[in-house]
Amino acid sequence: MWHYQAPLRDMRFVIEEWLAAPADWQRMPAFAALDVELAAQVVEEAGRFAGGVLAPLNASGDRQGCRFDNGRVTTPDGFPAAYQAFVDGGWAALACAEEHGGQGLPQLLNAALLEMIYSTNHAWAMYPGIAHGAYECLRAHGTPELRERYLAAIVSGEILPTMCLTEPQAGSDVGLLRARAEPAADGGYRITGGKIFASGGEHDLTANILHLVLARLPDAPSGSRGISLFLVPKRLPDGRHNAVRCDGIEHKLGIRGSATCTLSFEQAEGWLLGEPHKGLAAMFVMMNSARLHVGLQGLGHAEAAWQSAAQYAAERRQMRAVRRPEGSAEAPADPIHYHPAMRRTLLELRTLTEGMRALGYWTAHLLDEAEQGADPALRARAESRAQLLTPLVKAFFTEQGFRLASAALQVFGGYGYVQDYAVEQTLRDSRIAMIYEGSNEIQANDLLLRKVLGDGGAALRGLLETFRAEAETASALPECSAFASALGHYCDRLATAAEGLAAAAAQDPERPYRAAGDFLRLLGLVALAFAWTRSARLCQGRAAAPFHAGKLESAAFFFAYLLPEADHRLVLIEASRQPLPFLPE
Amino acid sequence: MWHYQAPLRDMRFVIEEWLAAPADWQRMPAFAALDVELAAQVVEEAGRFAGGVLAPLNASGDRQGCRFDNGRVTTPDGFPAAYQAFVDGGWAALACAEEHGGQGLPQLLNAALLEMIYSTNHAWAMYPGIAHGAYECLRAHGTPELRERYLAAIVSGEILPTMCLTEPQAGSDVGLLRARAEPAADGGYRITGGKIFASGGEHDLTANILHLVLARLPDAPSGSRGISLFLVPKRLPDGRHNAVRCDGIEHKLGIRGSATCTLSFEQAEGWLLGEPHKGLAAMFVMMNSARLHVGLQGLGHAEAAWQSAAQYAAERRQMRAVRRPEGSAEAPADPIHYHPAMRRTLLELRTLTEGMRALGYWTAHLLDEAEQGADPALRARAESRAQLLTPLVKAFFTEQGFRLASAALQVFGGYGYVQDYAVEQTLRDSRIAMIYEGSNEIQANDLLLRKVLGDGGAALRGLLETFRAEAETASALPECSAFASALGHYCDRLATAAEGLAAAAAQDPERPYRAAGDFLRLLGLVALAFAWTRSARLCQGRAAAPFHAGKLESAAFFFAYLLPEADHRLVLIEASRQPLPFLPE
Repeated sequence: MWHYQAPLRDMRFVIEEWLAAPADWQRMPAFAALDVELAAQVVEEAGRFAGGVLAPLNASGDRQGCRFDNGRVTTPDGFPAAYQAFVDGGWAALACAEEHGGQGLPQLLNAALLEMIYSTNHAWAMYPGIAHGAYECLRAHGTPELRERYLAAIVSGEILPTMCLTEPQAGSDVGLLRARAEPAADGGYRITGGKIFASGGEHDLTANILHLVLARLPDAPSGSRGISLFLVPKRLPDGRHNAVRCDGIEHKLGIRGSATCTLSFEQAEGWLLGEPHKGLAAMFVMMNSARLHVGLQGLGHAEAAWQSAAQYAAERRQMRAVRRPEGSAEAPADPIHYHPAMRRTLLELRTLTEGMRALGYWTAHLLDEAEQGADPALRARAESRAQLLTPLVKAFFTEQGFRLASAALQVFGGYGYVQDYAVEQTLRDSRIAMIYEGSNEIQANDLLLRKVLGDGGAALRGLLETFRAEAETASALPECSAFASALGHYCDRLATAAEGLAAAAAQDPERPYRAAGDFLRLLGLVALAFAWTRSARLCQGRAAAPFHAGKLESAAFFFAYLLPEADHRLVLIEASRQPLPFLPE
Repeated sequence: MWHYQAPLRDMRFVIEEWLAAPADWQRMPAFAALDVELAAQVVEEAGRFAGGVLAPLNASGDRQGCRFDNGRVTTPDGFPAAYQAFVDGGWAALACAEEHGGQGLPQLLNAALLEMIYSTNHAWAMYPGIAHGAYECLRAHGTPELRERYLAAIVSGEILPTMCLTEPQAGSDVGLLRARAEPAADGGYRITGGKIFASGGEHDLTANILHLVLARLPDAPSGSRGISLFLVPKRLPDGRHNAVRCDGIEHKLGIRGSATCTLSFEQAEGWLLGEPHKGLAAMFVMMNSARLHVGLQGLGHAEAAWQSAAQYAAERRQMRAVRRPEGSAEAPADPIHYHPAMRRTLLELRTLTEGMRALGYWTAHLLDEAEQGADPALRARAESRAQLLTPLVKAFFTEQGFRLASAALQVFGGYGYVQDYAVEQTLRDSRIAMIYEGSNEIQANDLLLRKVLGDGGAALRGLLETFRAEAETASALPECSAFASALGHYCDRLATAAEGLAAAAAQDPERPYRAAGDFLRLLGLVALAFAWTRSARLCQGRAAAPFHAGKLESAAFFFAYLLPEADHRLVLIEASRQPLPFLPE
């Protein structure tokens, strides 16, 4: 059986060399005290927590699932204790400000923590999943009184927040929601309506739960411009139970240890968060980090898939290989990782996982720069770049997480299909991340329509400048020049494709919508080409060390076997000139 | 909720027009009495059985699963009765010869039956799953005594056969198996060993079970040339229980109503089937149809995915679309099948499913021609072509079945992830077909190394001649000429790629193994281009009928949006020049 090993070596490579984050931290007052060794220690401790506390509960939590009985939810055995350990370890507050009781550490280190939590127990991770986002939202939009009442409790982990958006008729289209809020004499509001798919809407991890609820005020315009955000606690400040009831939990493909709740609010007491009718804007404060976190779920699943498949393929022996490593012993059957199809699958797993780690951590680091950067221009650029990368990370990573889980399952053959190995659970758990927090189709539209075309291509041009600067630097090194030249080539082609879509949209407004999925995938591949060019540049000349040799092999594999998909996506973007017929009613 | 609708219209199109099978049947003595209407009636009745009897047991069978207790397996409620209805309806014997009590109908009609059974209840279908293969194997290799004893019982459905190949250390590599068989004084053998992953190795559908067991004789050479095939009944002819014990069943990702058994044989009584040490050859008699049947599972899942997603997308309303069909009413939210990303997904589902149906049924029809064709040259050509297409159908269809199930799940959004809709089960059930009956990687090697390079490219050239003849015919029609020209172009490029791989293999024997997966995918796309060119040719000029208009739209969609992947696969075949490094030990 596979045991999770935190990928500490690669995490340090990304944080310390690929991002060179410690030098940036020195320039950010909030992190000036953070040095390389302390950061490495935090990551190592986080790995110990994930591997030691969460991993052992992953399979058992999946099999046991949550139990629902008369409005109460019992989480799987060990989940509440693991949450207490999480809180006691200070992990809940890692990236919250010290003034609110947090550790004041960067989002970047939180990203490493989250990756490991998602690798080891995605279902459990759903409970504290939106705590950081709720913290940010409350900090930005709460009245002093609400912040006083709840901010420290969220940071300390004493209270867990939930997000209540979806209603049966209102999924991707929150504008259709019907929950309503009426002003009450006490200055608060009374919330009435039904919500579904509320992750952690009820559980036994904390005594109180803080629901963030989208609802309409009586005078609200219809559609998404008439939605307000409310704080509705399960238990009121005076100790009374609020009129929130859990009516049931979903039986799901995966993340079965996570309670996905149907909630009824019946004149429940709550308070407005932010401006009336501006609930979506208030909620969007948490969107960048929330979508990044979902992307990190994809990375976490990819890492779990890669590790477990690599271990199995080194141990399992079937058939003789056409070619063996030099010096390997003759045997009736070779380890399956000698077989070309398995080598290719494993290299794909390793290369995409490590490439995504660089890009995902970079996005987290940009959020730190956007918030803590010393210079306003740097902050603005980091904010805009994080906005651009976020839908990419969310959609590209989660699709890869699922696809790589399936690829890993294939390595296990029949054993992959049975519950004894963790990989079938990884496949099931990973699938949700393509759907929630804005489906991947919505991310693709957001990326192309809003983030690329919406600003006339400015943010994209800035990103490509960074990519081209890397290509320029790397082109001087013989081991990297071919990579650098490919990177430059695809930057040009991507820019041309974006300009072509912008021009075409004037005549055919549907065109970018037809191309959005391929454009997202294209940008993901070009971003990975950037990631691998930089990785190769940092590792060239050091191939005597297995770690660096592996990086150089992965880079060569990426450019030979994976980057060609970029040409395919360019062809499909061109193909999207052809209109799509409507389906029969 | 979705209710299965047998795709009778398209099935008739494929059987009667695309294949023009009835004209061929007239030339085969065994099917001379079969006319179009009778065939259509059989398919319609089969659809009624699948939709009426099997579909209602699909979700409940999945939730209940099989129960194991002290060597006995209880299948889900309704499974035994459904099997009795299957037998009573004559479905078990559809394609078995009349002389053995079968219906004597073509494999082609059996393919239609199987597709519908797999669409509606894959888990249940596993029980009669290898009956036809076992019938063929016994007919070809059984002694007169064994045929007398078991052939009619298999055809009547009184006894269900199982295939016992896999052992813990011997999965893809059957050469590693250790089960042994010793000659006994009575002329039979005593079989000893453990088998895993035996589908239907124990169940409550029939009183007796006939195990086909691979084992080694005492004097057997090592490896796969020392394996013999034995018939081992659960209950012996004199009524005694044989020494076969079920030690447990697997808990699996999907097909949970199918009992996947661990079996122990301890001096179990059995009889040799075929020649000593030639068990694999004897078993290969059942391989062509068995692998085709697994491919049809992929088709069945794709059809289920398409139907359910199409229905949901027509009913579910979320957000306004950028464009609407002419004359559609304004509403606060449009059906999601107006949205471009959903249209593209749905068109991909429809186009691939219908294209695979043509190719899968064609392969079944080739098996009929190989067995019943009047002319020996035709029979030989059909046999060689079926051999070539079989690994393609198995691997391409099953991969698509899974990918399209995931695509359909995405259409459902969050509802796709919960058990209330059938699609998450389709995703789980479909995944096994990429693994068993020879993993898809093994199919790819079989296709390229044995079926294409193994005969110097002769079978492939013959296939491409058929494709080019279609291109030639279609090129004369204005509505099809662009399709025909693309088909011809990719035939040329495929042929060149195959020649290049043959030449490269001399220098670099591993090269074709690195390219095999992409080559299979390329051939699948070119075969689909053939399927859609022919479909378009048959439908052009008839666009006033919605069915034919839809076909022409699908053809246009295929050539614009799906066939470009062929270029990508050609690039990857070229990329496979680059060696793949070995992974660390």
